Amino acid sequence: RLYILYRDGARNSYLSRVHRRTTAAAMTLTQRLTLLFWGLLHIFGLVSACIYKYGTSPDSLAPPHGGTHWDHGLNGDDWIGVDAVGNPWTCSSGIRQSPINLPATQSLELNGDTLSRNLRTSWNYPTIHSNGSNVEVINNGHAIQIEWLSPYAADVQIVVPARQSNSTSVTAVLGMQQGEQSTTVRATPTQFHFHTISEHLIMGKHYPLELHIVHKITDLPACTSGCYSVTSVLFELTDVGDNSLLDSIWAAMPMREGQINFMPAGTEIRLGELLPHINVRDYMAYEGSLTTPPCTEGLLWHVMVHPQKISRAQWTKYKTAVSFKDCAFKNATSTAGHRHHRHHHHRRMLLADEGPVGNPQDYTCTVAAYGFNYRSSQQAYGRAVKLARA
Amino acid sequence: RLYILYRDGARNSYLSRVHRRTTAAAMTLTQRLTLLFWGLLHIFGLVSACIYKYGTSPDSLAPPHGGTHWDHGLNGDDWIGVDAVGNPWTCSSGIRQSPINLPATQSLELNGDTLSRNLRTSWNYPTIHSNGSNVEVINNGHAIQIEWLSPYAADVQIVVPARQSNSTSVTAVLGMQQGEQSTTVRATPTQFHFHTISEHLIMGKHYPLELHIVHKITDLPACTSGCYSVTSVLFELTDVGDNSLLDSIWAAMPMREGQINFMPAGTEIRLGELLPHINVRDYMAYEGSLTTPPCTEGLLWHVMVHPQKISRAQWTKYKTAVSFKDCAFKNATSTAGHRHHRHHHHRRMLLADEGPVGNPQDYTCTVAAYGFNYRSSQQAYGRAVKLARA
Repeated sequence: RLYILYRDGARNSYLSRVHRRTTAAAMTLTQRLTLLFWGLLHIFGLVSACIYKYGTSPDSLAPPHGGTHWDHGLNGDDWIGVDAVGNPWTCSSGIRQSPINLPATQSLELNGDTLSRNLRTSWNYPTIHSNGSNVEVINNGHAIQIEWLSPYAADVQIVVPARQSNSTSVTAVLGMQQGEQSTTVRATPTQFHFHTISEHLIMGKHYPLELHIVHKITDLPACTSGCYSVTSVLFELTDVGDNSLLDSIWAAMPMREGQINFMPAGTEIRLGELLPHINVRDYMAYEGSLTTPPCTEGLLWHVMVHPQKISRAQWTKYKTAVSFKDCAFKNATSTAGHRHHRHHHHRRMLLADEGPVGNPQDYTCTVAAYGFNYRSSQQAYGRAVKLARA
Repeated sequence: RLYILYRDGARNSYLSRVHRRTTAAAMTLTQRLTLLFWGLLHIFGLVSACIYKYGTSPDSLAPPHGGTHWDHGLNGDDWIGVDAVGNPWTCSSGIRQSPINLPATQSLELNGDTLSRNLRTSWNYPTIHSNGSNVEVINNGHAIQIEWLSPYAADVQIVVPARQSNSTSVTAVLGMQQGEQSTTVRATPTQFHFHTISEHLIMGKHYPLELHIVHKITDLPACTSGCYSVTSVLFELTDVGDNSLLDSIWAAMPMREGQINFMPAGTEIRLGELLPHINVRDYMAYEGSLTTPPCTEGLLWHVMVHPQKISRAQWTKYKTAVSFKDCAFKNATSTAGHRHHRHHHHRRMLLADEGPVGNPQDYTCTVAAYGFNYRSSQQAYGRAVKLARA
């Protein structure tokens, strides 16, 4: 985007600070009208017509991320940029990107695209117990994300060939045969978060919500600097009522970007139960990427076939948390707040391209439209998707 | 929303028109900074930070609708208002609203919620041929809608009881039994349009797009002033390529609100083929409402069970047509356009609550974020949904 300084305007018309008493007599009709115009411009232009996308709100408390700014406005179609140290993202250049439109499980079975039982990943997620200061629910301006500050004895065991080389990837299981000698590597969950609407589609259909549990793998030679694997659970809308497994998270959900809430002491997240029951834990596995910049590839994805449930009210709250916001200065109509108001606008405007720099506490933001935080589905480029039956 | 005139700001600081040559010497540092601030405020505040929801863009060519303004920003959750003659909408008070989350066809069969073959609706949609001035593709600020100006020999035959009274509704078929004496009434298509994402869900899943063909029924005693019936087709995402049945419509799709394009002479819409083939034309029928204000109830809905296909590119074009827009005056950086610019902003600001009143041609709008135009799913309140197998 090109910003051109409004020079001609500045020459022909500028804001002169004139004392009130000397002004009153001197003002011409034109001046009075011009004055009225600027006042109205200020109010209606800035207070009523400015909607901010999720990730750009001036009341955001989120610290700068470093690297190119991004949001979900165009569902990722504009993600060309660099990370904090200047390395270009993989989003637009990659050919193994996520999410994808997944096939019917039946067609995978018909084509023999299945993983035998001994090649299955296994999940072990104990209940997360909050003591009031160890579990965070974060609105990071991209998603609602849950992190824990105390050790969490959870792991996922991913099958890899028994003989590993430096080139053995965490996605090796996708190329393994039933009889092949195998072992497992440990994947440790680091956080989980949600997307609306779902990022993965199954047979061309979206789900209202998708849960991503992100894991890091380090005990594979190729992964000493870290490999990732994500477990995904889709949520379908139900008329029956709230999903109680989401209650503790939804109750602590921050509606403001950059806000972090501790889960109250005594509350818990039964993460293991957010996966389908072990008897019906069918999943589809494929090699993909992070679904947000830098869109790093080489990830092993597990998308659970059987969805969880979410109520209309729960979905609406999530859409509100990631909403488009309409923001105004708190003191916009009071004399006291005036200099402050201008000052912050000034600072903000100077750095508009880099996001707000004023004090977020000075803004009051309301929901202008429900939002979304999903990436468009990506080309599969002939990648294998394999079905693992429970 | 409350608008308060920015009086304190106007007193302390106003825009004085000072000639350039006399100003240059007289400006203090404070004045220069203030000047810079207002210039930047103007550019960044209005040119870069103001996003308009679909249905509110200042470059909209759509005429006023009459009645309360509405848009899809909150998926219909804020639809409280009146129509052009002051009658309140049914949206928030109704108990037979659309769309709804439809059950699995299997569960309808298991529960005996089926319509026998002789109670099926039948569709007859000849191909629509354009002569260059008889078929319009309209972006009305709520949806992309297709209308025809020459007679269209299409009809839909809806089953009703043989003996009709003034209380026989167009939804009577939902209460009829297999052996009951029946006749049909004719429903005439008046327009069709699309929603993204789908308004109806099936088993909690959304589809990327939904087609609504709206019909009017007049030859039933209770419908002399018109009853409606809508036929709905869901579209699922495909990786294979564009759906050629949509090509002629998509090629003529206006990207600007209120814009109307005639379909070029010689192009056609094979509307009948947009329904599933007659051998697999299973549908779910229920009593519902219009999915946009005034949300009139008493409609017979037909939702086709088998979806059509849409490509990623076709879906993106539709999301762009209903996008959030970022708008600026065309002449904002040229001296020539200046007075004009201010003038229109002034007029616009004075009437901000009633929508733009400036000349839409003065605005250049770009896509700030992909949009949506679906209504949230509504409570079913125990309504019957019936499956009709082909």
